[in-house]
Amino acid sequence: MSTDLLIEGTHFRRDWSSAADVGVKAAAQNLADIAAMGAAPTGLLLGLAVPGDTAVAWVLELVSGLLAECQRAGAVLIGGDVTSADAVMLGITAVGDLAGRQAVTRSGARPGDVVALSAVAGRSAAGLAVLEAGLDPSAGELADLVAAHRRPQPDYPAGVSAAAAGATSMIDISDGLVADLGHVAAASGVCIDIASASLADASLATAAAELRADWRQWALSGGEDHVLAASFPSDASVPQAWTITGQVREGNGVFVDSRRWPGRGGWDHFHHDDGRR
Amino acid sequence: MSTDLLIEGTHFRRDWSSAADVGVKAAAQNLADIAAMGAAPTGLLLGLAVPGDTAVAWVLELVSGLLAECQRAGAVLIGGDVTSADAVMLGITAVGDLAGRQAVTRSGARPGDVVALSAVAGRSAAGLAVLEAGLDPSAGELADLVAAHRRPQPDYPAGVSAAAAGATSMIDISDGLVADLGHVAAASGVCIDIASASLADASLATAAAELRADWRQWALSGGEDHVLAASFPSDASVPQAWTITGQVREGNGVFVDSRRWPGRGGWDHFHHDDGRR
Repeated sequence: MSTDLLIEGTHFRRDWSSAADVGVKAAAQNLADIAAMGAAPTGLLLGLAVPGDTAVAWVLELVSGLLAECQRAGAVLIGGDVTSADAVMLGITAVGDLAGRQAVTRSGARPGDVVALSAVAGRSAAGLAVLEAGLDPSAGELADLVAAHRRPQPDYPAGVSAAAAGATSMIDISDGLVADLGHVAAASGVCIDIASASLADASLATAAAELRADWRQWALSGGEDHVLAASFPSDASVPQAWTITGQVREGNGVFVDSRRWPGRGGWDHFHHDDGRR
Repeated sequence: MSTDLLIEGTHFRRDWSSAADVGVKAAAQNLADIAAMGAAPTGLLLGLAVPGDTAVAWVLELVSGLLAECQRAGAVLIGGDVTSADAVMLGITAVGDLAGRQAVTRSGARPGDVVALSAVAGRSAAGLAVLEAGLDPSAGELADLVAAHRRPQPDYPAGVSAAAAGATSMIDISDGLVADLGHVAAASGVCIDIASASLADASLATAAAELRADWRQWALSGGEDHVLAASFPSDASVPQAWTITGQVREGNGVFVDSRRWPGRGGWDHFHHDDGRR
C-alpha cells in the first residue's frame, strides 16, 4: 500500500494542468510506488476535497484521468470519499499484489550489486524545460518530452520483473535520480556510484542542444519520470528492458562517475570541475 | 480498505480539539468503517498536510492520538506522506483482514431481518449538547457523554462478531442512526422500522432532563458515535453485546415506531404528532 496527498498550489495548478492530467499524474505516482515495491498494482482509493464552486466537469475529467491510468496499470478505482475545502486536495491510496513475494524495500542494496533503471530518466524535466523556454513542442522529440512531462507513463510491469529477477532494493525516481538513490544508499548503508554516460538519450540530447542546456542535469536531478531504479546482485539476470547505470560500493552517499555528489557548489561545480579534467 | 479526508475548518478546529483528539477521531472513523465491513482492522496509512508554521508538538500529539486508537483497534500505523498546505488536512486510509469472509455491505438487508446496534447511539451528540449548554461536565454521566463526544470508542470486534453471526448488512453510524440506516435501506431496497424505545439509555435521559432536551433526537439523529448497525436474519444468533432496535420490511426509507421519518416538518412534527396520539 502507498498513500500521497496532492494539494492545489503545492503539487499542481488548475491553470497549468488539465483536470485529466492531474488525475493521470496522481494515479501514476501512487501506482508507481506500488510497482517500486515489486507488486502489481490492483486498486486505488480517492479522497477528494474540492471548493463548492468547482465545476462538475472538472471533477469528472479528473476522475477520467485517474481511471485511464488505473486501467493502464491494471488496477481498479475501489472507492473513496468526497468533501469540501478551500482548495482542491487529493488523498490517493494505491494497493497492489505481491503474489506471495516479500516487498522490495530501499534497504537491501549490498556492495557489489549493480544499479539499473527501468527507462530513461530526465524526460519529464526536459519536457518542462521545453515548455518554460517557449519552444514549439508540437511534433517530434520535443513533443515526446513535453508529453512525458504532462503525463508520465510508468512501466508498471517492470517492478514485478525486477522483483522476480531478485532485485535487492528498488525505488520510484520521483524526486530525481541522485536524490532517490540517496534514499536507497542511506537506507541500505552503502554508496551508489552512477556512470553518467549510461544515462544518455537521443531525445534529451536534442532538447539540450536546442536549449543550450546540459542533459545530464535533467537525467540526474529531474524528478516525476516515475522511472524505477533497482539494485541487483552482480550475478542476477537484470530484466532486458532495464539499463545498468551504476554500482553499489561500501561507503555512503551517491557518487557520479566516481565523484561525490553534490560536489562543493553543487551541479555547477561538478560540471566545471569535470570540464577541467 | 476505506479512506477519508479530514480538513481543518470543515471536519475539525484546532482551537476546539486537541491534536490528540483529532488523531483519535481520525483513526476511529476509518477503523470503524473497516469494522463495519466485518473485518478486523490491521493497519492505517496517514497522509498529512500542515502549514509550515505548525508546531512540531502539535503534529507529534496528533500522531500519538492516531497510534493510541490504532493500538485500541489492533492495527498498526503502516506509513504515510507528509506535505505542506495552508490548512491542516489528513488523508487517512485504513485496511483490515476479512479472514476469508466476504465483506458485509450496505445492500444485503432483507425483509424479515432484525436490525441491531453494537452500542448506545447518541452519546456523542448528547456530549456536544452538554458542552454547548455550558454545563459542568467534570464528573458523572455528563462527563462520560462529553468524553464520548471528544473521543468516540468504537467497539471494533463487534464488527467481526456480527459478520460471523451472519449479518446481512452493516454500517458505521457516523452520520446519525436514521441517516445511515437510510443508506442501508436505499442500497438494500427495503424499509427499516426503528423502535425508539429500544434506544433508551440512562445517561442520555439524565442529560436530556438537565438540558430539557429530547434524548430521542440525539439517538436518532446524532452522528459520530461510530456505533455499528447491522441487519441479521430473524433466526440468527445476534451477538450478545448487540441490542435489537428494529425490523426490515418490504418498502423503502426509514420509519420510526412505524411512522415514516422524517414526517412532514421533520423531527418537530414527528415529535408533536407523536405526542398527540
